[in-house]
Amino acid sequence: MPNEIKGLNEECGVFGVFGASDASQLAYYGLHTLQHRGQEGAGIVSADGSSLYQHRDRGLLAKVFADPHELERLVGDAAIGHVRYGTSGHNSIANIQPFLFRFYDGDVALAHNGNLTNAVTLRHRLEEKGAVFQSDSDTEILIHLIRQYIRDGFIPALKKSLNLVHGGFAYLLLQKDRLIAALDPNGIRPLCIGRLANGAYVVASETCALDIINAKFVRDVLPGELIIIDRAGLHIDHYTTNTQLAICSMEYIYFARPDSIIHGVTVHNARKRMGKLLAKEHPVDADMVIGVPNSSLSAASGYAEESGLPYEMGLIKSQYVARTFIQPTQELREMGVHMKLSAVRGVVKGKRVAVVDDSIVRGTTSKQIVQMLRDAGAKEVHLLIASPPFKFPCFYGIDVSTRAELLAAHYSVAEMCKQVGADSLHFLSLKSLIKAIGIPDAGDAPNGGLTVAYFDGQYPTPLYDYEEGYLKSLNEQERRARKEQA
Amino acid sequence: MPNEIKGLNEECGVFGVFGASDASQLAYYGLHTLQHRGQEGAGIVSADGSSLYQHRDRGLLAKVFADPHELERLVGDAAIGHVRYGTSGHNSIANIQPFLFRFYDGDVALAHNGNLTNAVTLRHRLEEKGAVFQSDSDTEILIHLIRQYIRDGFIPALKKSLNLVHGGFAYLLLQKDRLIAALDPNGIRPLCIGRLANGAYVVASETCALDIINAKFVRDVLPGELIIIDRAGLHIDHYTTNTQLAICSMEYIYFARPDSIIHGVTVHNARKRMGKLLAKEHPVDADMVIGVPNSSLSAASGYAEESGLPYEMGLIKSQYVARTFIQPTQELREMGVHMKLSAVRGVVKGKRVAVVDDSIVRGTTSKQIVQMLRDAGAKEVHLLIASPPFKFPCFYGIDVSTRAELLAAHYSVAEMCKQVGADSLHFLSLKSLIKAIGIPDAGDAPNGGLTVAYFDGQYPTPLYDYEEGYLKSLNEQERRARKEQA
Amino acid sequence: MPNEIKGLNEECGVFGVFGASDASQLAYYGLHTLQHRGQEGAGIVSADGSSLYQHRDRGLLAKVFADPHELERLVGDAAIGHVRYGTSGHNSIANIQPFLFRFYDGDVALAHNGNLTNAVTLRHRLEEKGAVFQSDSDTEILIHLIRQYIRDGFIPALKKSLNLVHGGFAYLLLQKDRLIAALDPNGIRPLCIGRLANGAYVVASETCALDIINAKFVRDVLPGELIIIDRAGLHIDHYTTNTQLAICSMEYIYFARPDSIIHGVTVHNARKRMGKLLAKEHPVDADMVIGVPNSSLSAASGYAEESGLPYEMGLIKSQYVARTFIQPTQELREMGVHMKLSAVRGVVKGKRVAVVDDSIVRGTTSKQIVQMLRDAGAKEVHLLIASPPFKFPCFYGIDVSTRAELLAAHYSVAEMCKQVGADSLHFLSLKSLIKAIGIPDAGDAPNGGLTVAYFDGQYPTPLYDYEEGYLKSLNEQERRARKEQA
Amino acid sequence: MPNEIKGLNEECGVFGVFGASDASQLAYYGLHTLQHRGQEGAGIVSADGSSLYQHRDRGLLAKVFADPHELERLVGDAAIGHVRYGTSGHNSIANIQPFLFRFYDGDVALAHNGNLTNAVTLRHRLEEKGAVFQSDSDTEILIHLIRQYIRDGFIPALKKSLNLVHGGFAYLLLQKDRLIAALDPNGIRPLCIGRLANGAYVVASETCALDIINAKFVRDVLPGELIIIDRAGLHIDHYTTNTQLAICSMEYIYFARPDSIIHGVTVHNARKRMGKLLAKEHPVDADMVIGVPNSSLSAASGYAEESGLPYEMGLIKSQYVARTFIQPTQELREMGVHMKLSAVRGVVKGKRVAVVDDSIVRGTTSKQIVQMLRDAGAKEVHLLIASPPFKFPCFYGIDVSTRAELLAAHYSVAEMCKQVGADSLHFLSLKSLIKAIGIPDAGDAPNGGLTVAYFDGQYPTPLYDYEEGYLKSLNEQERRARKEQA
Repeated sequence: MPNEIKGLNEECGVFGVFGASDASQLAYYGLHTLQHRGQEGAGIVSADGSSLYQHRDRGLLAKVFADPHELERLVGDAAIGHVRYGTSGHNSIANIQPFLFRFYDGDVALAHNGNLTNAVTLRHRLEEKGAVFQSDSDTEILIHLIRQYIRDGFIPALKKSLNLVHGGFAYLLLQKDRLIAALDPNGIRPLCIGRLANGAYVVASETCALDIINAKFVRDVLPGELIIIDRAGLHIDHYTTNTQLAICSMEYIYFARPDSIIHGVTVHNARKRMGKLLAKEHPVDADMVIGVPNSSLSAASGYAEESGLPYEMGLIKSQYVARTFIQPTQELREMGVHMKLSAVRGVVKGKRVAVVDDSIVRGTTSKQIVQMLRDAGAKEVHLLIASPPFKFPCFYGIDVSTRAELLAAHYSVAEMCKQVGADSLHFLSLKSLIKAIGIPDAGDAPNGGLTVAYFDGQYPTPLYDYEEGYLKSLNEQERRARKEQA
Repeated sequence: MPNEIKGLNEECGVFGVFGASDASQLAYYGLHTLQHRGQEGAGIVSADGSSLYQHRDRGLLAKVFADPHELERLVGDAAIGHVRYGTSGHNSIANIQPFLFRFYDGDVALAHNGNLTNAVTLRHRLEEKGAVFQSDSDTEILIHLIRQYIRDGFIPALKKSLNLVHGGFAYLLLQKDRLIAALDPNGIRPLCIGRLANGAYVVASETCALDIINAKFVRDVLPGELIIIDRAGLHIDHYTTNTQLAICSMEYIYFARPDSIIHGVTVHNARKRMGKLLAKEHPVDADMVIGVPNSSLSAASGYAEESGLPYEMGLIKSQYVARTFIQPTQELREMGVHMKLSAVRGVVKGKRVAVVDDSIVRGTTSKQIVQMLRDAGAKEVHLLIASPPFKFPCFYGIDVSTRAELLAAHYSVAEMCKQVGADSLHFLSLKSLIKAIGIPDAGDAPNGGLTVAYFDGQYPTPLYDYEEGYLKSLNEQERRARKEQA
Repeated sequence: MPNEIKGLNEECGVFGVFGASDASQLAYYGLHTLQHRGQEGAGIVSADGSSLYQHRDRGLLAKVFADPHELERLVGDAAIGHVRYGTSGHNSIANIQPFLFRFYDGDVALAHNGNLTNAVTLRHRLEEKGAVFQSDSDTEILIHLIRQYIRDGFIPALKKSLNLVHGGFAYLLLQKDRLIAALDPNGIRPLCIGRLANGAYVVASETCALDIINAKFVRDVLPGELIIIDRAGLHIDHYTTNTQLAICSMEYIYFARPDSIIHGVTVHNARKRMGKLLAKEHPVDADMVIGVPNSSLSAASGYAEESGLPYEMGLIKSQYVARTFIQPTQELREMGVHMKLSAVRGVVKGKRVAVVDDSIVRGTTSKQIVQMLRDAGAKEVHLLIASPPFKFPCFYGIDVSTRAELLAAHYSVAEMCKQVGADSLHFLSLKSLIKAIGIPDAGDAPNGGLTVAYFDGQYPTPLYDYEEGYLKSLNEQERRARKEQA
Repeated sequence: MPNEIKGLNEECGVFGVFGASDASQLAYYGLHTLQHRGQEGAGIVSADGSSLYQHRDRGLLAKVFADPHELERLVGDAAIGHVRYGTSGHNSIANIQPFLFRFYDGDVALAHNGNLTNAVTLRHRLEEKGAVFQSDSDTEILIHLIRQYIRDGFIPALKKSLNLVHGGFAYLLLQKDRLIAALDPNGIRPLCIGRLANGAYVVASETCALDIINAKFVRDVLPGELIIIDRAGLHIDHYTTNTQLAICSMEYIYFARPDSIIHGVTVHNARKRMGKLLAKEHPVDADMVIGVPNSSLSAASGYAEESGLPYEMGLIKSQYVARTFIQPTQELREMGVHMKLSAVRGVVKGKRVAVVDDSIVRGTTSKQIVQMLRDAGAKEVHLLIASPPFKFPCFYGIDVSTRAELLAAHYSVAEMCKQVGADSLHFLSLKSLIKAIGIPDAGDAPNGGLTVAYFDGQYPTPLYDYEEGYLKSLNEQERRARKEQA
């Protein structure tokens, strides 16, 4: 499913490079491959050993840097960049990253992927001490904390600060002569290290950003690590050793690019295995398997392969959906005008169709897809979801922080099937999901090293600021279950 | 293969509607689904029974109508629209269609998909009579011809004119109270008729433009037909009966959207059959089949199904390649920066890969794809082309009118294989291509009702203005063969 | 008065240069100084000896060429350019000049300042012969006429055509190796010739366009002349000898830049003399003289000098009124929000003010100015107009072609005074206007070589297409007067 | 002289309104009249009793609000706005005002005109306490100071903070239910209060912003005052009583709009008196007086009136100089291409010209003007400056903070005359300048209540951060003089 349709949006992708003469241009290409992680804003800060240079704006990367001079202005051999999903709320330009802070003792740029669970508390405490925030994002908090302890030196202040922020975070910091990366103690967001042929180091949210610039993959950043890259090379440090891998399972299910490799697992392969296990758990009597483009094509091909059913292209997605697209009038909408997906009549007409999708969030798109296939003449439509029911919100960076909008939080599978109008509806089991992903070096981490709270409500960290609201959103049974768990 | 990579570009998609209150908005949605047929410019002319209203500009449809007021200005219940591929040459705005001509006896708008083979001759003759052309396109010729005979009345003048223009053409004309469509005597370009629930008629290059607005397919426009739609309904007339179907095979191979149905054949299904027949003709010893996104995925899945090899996603295409994309420096290009396609390392590493592509034009992209797969660790790369070698130019609307740029015009298959660096290279036979498409009502038309001149040099019409240049481009053997044919 | 306030808008300024390496850039600077003659669109066509290159678009010159590459693309040592005032009507881009027409026997570009009085008749006749027009402007007619006679050769065909078009016109034509200028038989529009230090020739609507590029003034183009500039130099030819100077008096009163010199008269000096004669004819008992910026400042200073009253800056005009300016809501408008002119309270408070303006068209601005001055505390407001009452429309290029909108066509001076709310209202006499301008070489041409039809209804040419409508607009007395005149 | 030519640029104009339903639109119109005070960026923050809304961007006001929806989004009955001159330096968007700061205990917006002299010291001290600045501007300092003392309540914290910042400042602050204005103890920047018919209060840099929205002038804000406007009305408070008026004389000479009234003096009248006194001090033997448009026209008319010489329009300024204007090539520049000013040949040819300008900063423009007049045929050019030699920098908000660029800091009047190429050069005396302005209620304030440090080096406040650099820039004699003064 295309992200913009589903309404699931991760807040950000990050990219950093140190030691390469074309640093800002490399950042541009790297961010380009991470564009699926955020389409609302983009920015790059570069460093040339003495100063930092920034450009950022609203919109897609290609628009932000439509004037090539903007990129040329970002001189130097180090850079960090950011692509952002953000609400259209207050003064959104101030919220576009990387942030650049200027101090008498040296400038610092900061880019962040993730979400803090104690941001409100920390910000309130900082404001009481006189802190002035200009953005709404929780990213700014880290720099304020650092400045509280700056007399100890930058790295010690950073380590102290990283122990105070909680939740899911992958930070990149750039100083005039240093690039720093830090990952939360559960490694909830992905972050990897690569190296260019000339020895320059690269840090990025996903490996696809290494591939495009021909950087060799070195290793994933691990939970609790602090990576420091400077003229002397790459140094691996820790700000905490109290860590346990719990990477967001949604990265594998839906967010990450299929060609990215996260903790040793190629995303496409994981998805294909999800499809295969789904076929084992829920075989359906159909004439063909089709996937919802683009994110569910891998799972669909896995389902087809395992089931022996032919894999067909029954839905296609327009390549040309622009953000400025004129919205159909209500009348046209009722006529059935749909701009992003089309059913292929010549393929599905008169057929029993098994549609594989990666997940159901609100259910509105699923309902449209089923209707679209029936309008194109499908005889039966069976909906197969390559992940378990999405029942609980995410507090670590996915834009679903209340249960209200989650269909599976309120309805049984049978009820959901009726709502979306399918002939049958099936979900992958949690066990199969974990097996399909199969992180090789997860060791004895629960859930195979994954955060699967979206499905079972078991969060790997305390929820802090969100705890109270979350508890209120649970029903009696869920509350009891949670109590027992704790 | 994405069109913009390959360098094959058809000149235009057309859409018309008559009798619907939201005419210009319907045209907008229809053109949106035809955007793959032209990305350089777009325009719509509407009619409200008394006047015609025009808006057109350079760029993608969504940009041309970024200001919704432009669409609101186009009032009336009839409209024609156009998307255009065009060179950046002279004064390109003047070349963007639909053209709108104003006469004391009534305005006429005109949109055109195709290419005339006697345009130079006709234009020269008209200019000698005092005609003044403002565009470089051959589209304007038709209106000048009509005006030469206008005293006979508009429809008779149009019929006379349609007998004077030669080549491939699908015309839409809009007058204040009438929509007219006309197709060349060989039906080289596709054109179909649909109907909305409210009775309004729609005419479009492809059926995908009917589907998006929920119009029911009525029939294809046939060679030599003149379709007139007015308040009294739809009238089917002919300007000639000397016709024979020879629709461009490239529409099936590469240009049309997979969900479109042309002369009873769903494009996706035709492509899948090309893949199956390719597998029968050229089985290869490989570990997996991958397709070049997006146009070759259908053929690849057919190849996989027939061969029994697993179908994998070994190449992915970025969703976010914008036109304004900053070009990599030479240095970065040498590093291997490639913005549009990426190889999926985790899929192809260590594997023998069968890559299915729809065609080879210049060969540069094929070379890049092979290299990309090798860089990602593929052990062997076998390239399988789901059409015959593209040896002869197109004079009917595809942007390949000289042989110089066609790799297959100059090299044998073995030489081409070496040039692109593949372990093996295979093409579908012409016979299988015709069989795979299989137009049901082609009757006894040669080549199953297809133009296959790109592969065998046998054009369905005289070449007129192009004849001399074409003959010069042939080698001795080809020249001899052509003589015998004639 | 600023043009955009008054609603008087001349259609166009033209500029041409031949033989200078920076031709298109010189055209850009020249057009910049002519921007007051048209703000709706601009364009330049250049020639390099073999081809013609065009760029044109809507908006101010600086916007049209905001991307400097557009100017760089216009290579060659010859160029013509155009700035245009135009209605927002049909497809306005097609109407922006210079037009570029491509023929098998050579391209021609065309730019035009003026208005034809027999355009409708000519166009109808041409269309009946098969001509196809793409623009609404009457400019295109010339090229169609030329092509009717092209077998005689270009210059003979042009001469024949110039004898068929009637009204006011200053044409520039550019061919690959030739620049041609032509002026109507009454020289209604200004056109002058200059020369650069390197020998290149320049032709422009006003001398200010020569000054900016440091070209020396050579001479005015005279009525009926055909100026041909090519590699061999400048040739002065005639297409008719039936000529008599009748240059538009509005050029001196209002349109032209004060620093331009037209037929030997510096516009500022003419205006100052109008002010002086106005003071002689209509002395008023006031404390100060103020002018309406910018066009009436010269006349106001003349009035002050002659009357001995102090010249003050009682009204100022904002430098920053942009076209995109947000319009005040009705409520704000009633509050008196006025964006372009402001009264200087500290100057006019408690004072009897003599305001000098150049003309009254609709009267709405005059009314606003009087009110604005009263709001700022002026005790008395005397309005002095440095030209006679504007009673009759212009058919030669000024955007006032019906009498309906002309206040003076319907009311006496006393009624007008009441309507605009002034304490007194006075106009310059026609005799004094002619004396103030005082073209030195007018010879025995009527009205000192001026068209003063706006004031007395006596047009220097037949009105052709406009005759019937004009006659209908006259009252009984005017009709009788006209009959007698004829 | 047009500001952009001279290189003197004041940093900002401010506007605030409280209690009017169209608050943001009123701010828009008010800022429009203040556009001459800053063209690099603009912004508005509105308040509706519960929230604050912001829009700001680079460019002219009309561009920033080109999309009217941006203004509509700024709901509420209170607003502050800002126009800004700023270097193109670091991340300029972050520097565009009004700033909007969000705190858990309520949002605050801030706009500032002026410059602090102890900003570096204060910022350093604040950063050491943990403060994080995002902009380069010194404006942010005030809010950080306020937050240090916020436990005392907002107004007490603000008062304390205003006693810590030094230099020239006019601040506007907006909270959800309150508008606050504060002026520095010397009232160096102008700030006035007005009232709309409906009782709403307005605060603005200049009275022209009151006039455009028909607000009645109430009074000037006085040095050291703190104006608080809320639902209960307007309250006048003080944060210090240690005050003495020393308003920037450059406001009268050059910056302010001629129709503004500052401390009872209409700017146009002050300038006219400067011209008259200049004529008394320095009569020249000339044929006419001309002013450099637009800022010197008032002084020129005064000179003409006093001297009895005719006042002519010998130089005109294009109305159409846009920011995007294409720069002439070096070659064209040498040809004498000059886009903004033109000499009127027909006026100055053969004449002895007295040119009145308001000031000389670098001298480059003066040189160009003299040359331009000579090229247009002037026989003699006498340059008369309506202010004393500009020798010392400004530290209170004018963009001239080093002496290096000031011609008069390095050369005698005779040397300057030679450099600019004039026949004679004369400056107004300091005494006459003070007399010409003549603030009525200046009392016994030195220099008639004016800052004239630009001419005599005697600053009304200590220079703090700038002291050291300033002393170094002085020559021996100046240093001695300064010592004696202290």
